[in-house]
Amino acid sequence: MIVSAETLMVGLAADRARVEERLEALFAERDAVVPRLDAAMRHGVLAGGKRLRPVLVYAAGRALGAGDDSLDAPAMAIELVHAYSLVHDDLPAMDDDDLRRGQPTVHRAFDEATAILAGDALQVLAFEVLAHAPHPRLPAMLLTLAKSAGRDGMVAGQALDLAAVGGHPDVAALATMHGHKTGALIRAAVRLGGLVAVAEDDPRLAALDVYAQAIGLAFQIHDDVLDVTGDTATLGKTSGADAARDKPTYPSLLGLAGARARSGELIEEASAALAPLGEGAAPLKALARYMIERDH
Amino acid sequence: MIVSAETLMVGLAADRARVEERLEALFAERDAVVPRLDAAMRHGVLAGGKRLRPVLVYAAGRALGAGDDSLDAPAMAIELVHAYSLVHDDLPAMDDDDLRRGQPTVHRAFDEATAILAGDALQVLAFEVLAHAPHPRLPAMLLTLAKSAGRDGMVAGQALDLAAVGGHPDVAALATMHGHKTGALIRAAVRLGGLVAVAEDDPRLAALDVYAQAIGLAFQIHDDVLDVTGDTATLGKTSGADAARDKPTYPSLLGLAGARARSGELIEEASAALAPLGEGAAPLKALARYMIERDH
Repeated sequence: MIVSAETLMVGLAADRARVEERLEALFAERDAVVPRLDAAMRHGVLAGGKRLRPVLVYAAGRALGAGDDSLDAPAMAIELVHAYSLVHDDLPAMDDDDLRRGQPTVHRAFDEATAILAGDALQVLAFEVLAHAPHPRLPAMLLTLAKSAGRDGMVAGQALDLAAVGGHPDVAALATMHGHKTGALIRAAVRLGGLVAVAEDDPRLAALDVYAQAIGLAFQIHDDVLDVTGDTATLGKTSGADAARDKPTYPSLLGLAGARARSGELIEEASAALAPLGEGAAPLKALARYMIERDH
Repeated sequence: MIVSAETLMVGLAADRARVEERLEALFAERDAVVPRLDAAMRHGVLAGGKRLRPVLVYAAGRALGAGDDSLDAPAMAIELVHAYSLVHDDLPAMDDDDLRRGQPTVHRAFDEATAILAGDALQVLAFEVLAHAPHPRLPAMLLTLAKSAGRDGMVAGQALDLAAVGGHPDVAALATMHGHKTGALIRAAVRLGGLVAVAEDDPRLAALDVYAQAIGLAFQIHDDVLDVTGDTATLGKTSGADAARDKPTYPSLLGLAGARARSGELIEEASAALAPLGEGAAPLKALARYMIERDH
């Protein structure tokens, strides 16, 4: 079974709408202690976004037989962690970005202190959401999310990224940085979806991890390619920003054609890894292709 | 049974040493992806501190019959959350503090970006630690920790505090702010200890919560008193800082004698609330007195 590009787009849109509706509900009909803090958190998580990580939770979980309802909490949790990381990465002391998803960043729309606090609160909200949906494998899910986000995962990646600006890392160093900065959370998304369906020692989780690792890297290479070839309006962030900052990228190290070839190979590897999952993996294969075909 | 001041001090020292040893172990013999990030996290959590929240976890848990080993994970987790909050609160965009526990703050000892990331990683490490020690009531423990730290708990308190600088809140508004900023985590510490021992609907948890709420407020009033009466060397932070910043405090609203009287009343209330716990609550009563007798 092959999922057509059109079917994929319809499915993507449905999953995005599903997770956004649930994220929206976290801010509705509640008596916030500090409404401005809620507003900043809301801006951080609901002002657009591809919702790639939740989409991966749903696709991976379904591929192993999980029901949609049981996938909502991990889908929301991973997006909340992703959203917090963007709010903090954009801060003046970090990447100092004014624009994110075509909107002012949280510290521009509000203020710096509020952006720090909103990020902090978004991160912990992810764990609250997970706790609200007790699952027999909650300890493993909690560990997966916490480790992927922490000092040996996403936060390490951001620290490596900040240290790399103006430096001259090779392809291996760049892969290590991205493997932590974006790869860790993409792997966690896929694994969380899988854990909803099967036990930790199920060999299909290992297959999913090979898939996730490959698409995570391909995703990042394509991001770097888009920074060169895309335009600011479509990207929703400033095109050419990496080169302007002297940030090392895959196109700068491999050339544009080389970077595209590498991301194509990775998608082949990702699809091949899914063999043990059979027909149910077709949407995951389509998602892998989407990673390197998207225009933003 | 009454616990003497001397016995209390010996017990406090033992519990502090216990949790510090375990926190220390989180940074030992590991191959950190970014050693500088680990160093900043370590500085944030291990450069001194009263360890009041872990001490409360142990005391509350033991009062209901929990064993020490089962209390280590929540004791560490709550201290990690507390430590992260101090690292972020000290940032230039927040309270802009240079000194904490007699040492340079993390952003002064390292840099601002590293301090933001170290705080982020300390917060998520708290959840990792909790996940490593699976407990039948993990969902309730997770929820307790996450809610106390989040947008309706500690983070809300910090947002209220920032908004209050230069304003003129009354005693009720001040209590609301502190009830979130420091009270939420103190209540969580006591509840986490209790949850290790008994189920969520055990009435002794409700008694513990009345106790925790009272000592949390007394703790804060005494903190404000110490800012007036203490000296910088003993406090480990700049004495008189609240007045210098035009920060509203209990002594500024109630007078020094009024503030002391109020904290004394609260400690009486806290002790009275512990009646359903019987003799085992003696260390908790001694801790309540300590809250308003400490000199730093």
